[in-house]
Amino acid sequence: MRVYIEDIGRHEGQPVTIKGWLHNRRSSGKIHFLILRDGTGFLQGVMSKAAVGDELFHLADHLSQETSIIVDGTVRADTRAPSGYELDVTSFSVVGESRDFPITPKEHGVDYLLDRRHLWLRSERQQAILRIRHEIIDAVRDFFNSRGFILTDPPIFTPAACEGTTTLFPVEYFEDQKAYLTQSGQLYLEATAMALGRVYSFGPTFRAEKSKTRRHLTEFWMVEPEMAYASLDDVMDLAEDLIVSMVARVLEKRRHELSVLERDITKLEAIQKPFPRISYDDAVTRLKSKGHAIEWGGDFGGPDETTLSEAFDRPVMIHHYPSAVKAFYMKPDPDRPELAMGVDVLAPEGYGEIIGGGERLADLELMLQRIKEHDLPQEAFEWYLDLRRYGTVPHGGFGMGIERAVAWICKLEHVRETIPFPRMMYRMYP
Amino acid sequence: MRVYIEDIGRHEGQPVTIKGWLHNRRSSGKIHFLILRDGTGFLQGVMSKAAVGDELFHLADHLSQETSIIVDGTVRADTRAPSGYELDVTSFSVVGESRDFPITPKEHGVDYLLDRRHLWLRSERQQAILRIRHEIIDAVRDFFNSRGFILTDPPIFTPAACEGTTTLFPVEYFEDQKAYLTQSGQLYLEATAMALGRVYSFGPTFRAEKSKTRRHLTEFWMVEPEMAYASLDDVMDLAEDLIVSMVARVLEKRRHELSVLERDITKLEAIQKPFPRISYDDAVTRLKSKGHAIEWGGDFGGPDETTLSEAFDRPVMIHHYPSAVKAFYMKPDPDRPELAMGVDVLAPEGYGEIIGGGERLADLELMLQRIKEHDLPQEAFEWYLDLRRYGTVPHGGFGMGIERAVAWICKLEHVRETIPFPRMMYRMYP
Repeated sequence: MRVYIEDIGRHEGQPVTIKGWLHNRRSSGKIHFLILRDGTGFLQGVMSKAAVGDELFHLADHLSQETSIIVDGTVRADTRAPSGYELDVTSFSVVGESRDFPITPKEHGVDYLLDRRHLWLRSERQQAILRIRHEIIDAVRDFFNSRGFILTDPPIFTPAACEGTTTLFPVEYFEDQKAYLTQSGQLYLEATAMALGRVYSFGPTFRAEKSKTRRHLTEFWMVEPEMAYASLDDVMDLAEDLIVSMVARVLEKRRHELSVLERDITKLEAIQKPFPRISYDDAVTRLKSKGHAIEWGGDFGGPDETTLSEAFDRPVMIHHYPSAVKAFYMKPDPDRPELAMGVDVLAPEGYGEIIGGGERLADLELMLQRIKEHDLPQEAFEWYLDLRRYGTVPHGGFGMGIERAVAWICKLEHVRETIPFPRMMYRMYP
Repeated sequence: MRVYIEDIGRHEGQPVTIKGWLHNRRSSGKIHFLILRDGTGFLQGVMSKAAVGDELFHLADHLSQETSIIVDGTVRADTRAPSGYELDVTSFSVVGESRDFPITPKEHGVDYLLDRRHLWLRSERQQAILRIRHEIIDAVRDFFNSRGFILTDPPIFTPAACEGTTTLFPVEYFEDQKAYLTQSGQLYLEATAMALGRVYSFGPTFRAEKSKTRRHLTEFWMVEPEMAYASLDDVMDLAEDLIVSMVARVLEKRRHELSVLERDITKLEAIQKPFPRISYDDAVTRLKSKGHAIEWGGDFGGPDETTLSEAFDRPVMIHHYPSAVKAFYMKPDPDRPELAMGVDVLAPEGYGEIIGGGERLADLELMLQRIKEHDLPQEAFEWYLDLRRYGTVPHGGFGMGIERAVAWICKLEHVRETIPFPRMMYRMYP
């Protein structure tokens, strides 16, 4: 009976068949220890000459890393085994050979590994990261679905830019038309929120930044909720609940994977409501008092974000930024119009911004003025202006970058390991 | 207390506040009937002069379609109401005006509506379609997650073509590099399946076909599962289970939306296992006997697909196509190498192919030969060949187009209504 390694505990004492790959092998004179993997987990198979006979035993002398094999054996509980079980091998057959698998247990440089990303993914660590990514995405979708949000994915091909054109990828569309790949679905989500009340999107977004930092990919996934009849406070509450729920799910379901990554889970257990909420004004005061060279009106850099967040054991929300550093569609504070009712959520442990959002500008006249001030072509935004012409309502939402969330929760140095096939300025292969 | 219309039944006899839009209004001398919508549903508010006073009552004389309003009232059960409830209005306030909303209850041409897609989405019918789309996507993801599949989204930017370059959209990447938008993540999913066993993707794919049929979008969403150690039969079983589970979910949770669309649900209730499985050979015989001008070796056209599927009340699976009409990566039948171990699933009611897939070619030498025969650049496929060099295993999967599935389940004439903002050859706005 074919069994997946993740289900092995239900088959103690039974004969089973594992279909997988040889992850590693060590041998003493009369016993081979085979570390098997089948994608769902890792399992040690113990093969004695007595059990399998001379011929098969000697065949196993030459089994190399990543050979695909089908192994028969009996499941035995073993408290020393990481999974709690081992397999007493009774037989096996080779499906596909693997000579000189290029990624060995020794250390490899990151460029070497990225060139072989399709094989690197087979390592225990990369599998753990992808499973946590999967869990985070599932938690995010469950969160929104259970609260009545409807998934309304915005288009990838857009005719105009959300926030200027310099960081957009142009696509050759039909008959010399130019399309741009979306940087954010927000404007479209505002339209679907006016139809369906509470909506979200989950899809890839693109940014042509000539940036080679550890926090940038050219292609990355975003979740973007948008709510009609919502204020900045509602947006902050939602962001807080989302993060708490996402971290709790990973702690509940992916504890094994976190331990593979040697993640300090006490840091994740601290992620509880309420998150500190600090105004931009206060944040500038804090930074100045710690000797940062920031003046009121400037945007925060990476070191500023790190200083602000390291005072807390949970994400911190910075709100009410100067309008001048924020996008044209943000609502100005009615009492202090020089401030935008936006919020950034900074992850702890120096991971910086993972969420940006706020309340949107709902007033038609003010929006027309902003489009002019930002030198945007009004005709491209006519449909967006319609949302203010026909039954405008206060509304808001945010975007969360999945790769940054995964990097933080897994505590990775670079976002490139958070996605199956990272795309960067100089990397499009494999 | 603010209440969503979908939850109104829990507040019978209570005072509530609805925040939404005026969908429609009719008035007699002393009563206004306001059809309210808030994105979660529609509700009739009954406003009498006696209850709200002269001033408010006369203000309501001029309320126009899509005005955003906040309405206070008391929930009253009414068996004549579609939702089972009405609201006795006690007060209201206008949030945003809406003069001459361009989409009225009268008939509009489809180009007119598509130009105003951002507003058209507010109609009851378009909302119903988007909710069913949401439910289908959620059902698909639950299906794979509950079976241990891991979500591993492939890249959107690809250096090479999966099946030729003529239908690819080129992107200007950095420094005069060219990237292409993915048509299918399959090759990448084969790599992640070798790491994680059972995987799937859910994301947008792109096809630059100069096609203006009712079944084509340039940007559409696909779900693509891939399984290591799987045969063509496993692939067919999975496709069958997926479709059954997806249709059952829509019947369970979106019966109201199906009725808005006047969908004949008996057609959907018939979608049960087993689906008929017909070989290409038999399909050609069937078609010939019905007078179609098809010869063995040719691919099926739309009318062929319709004839094949109309013999059944459920999807039909056609398998073992001539290799010549199928992609290079398909496994040839060992007994009849001129046949590819692929399968297409045709939806009933003339909706044609919604799933295509099969068992992949796992043999290195044969794959090298195929790449040569298809004139593909081997160096672009080196990483893909590695999957056959290092522990190759039998494997397979399929792709299902979400828009075609939605069009079928909703019984729509054209896929353009299945997605919030459709992209077609001549349409990229709004």
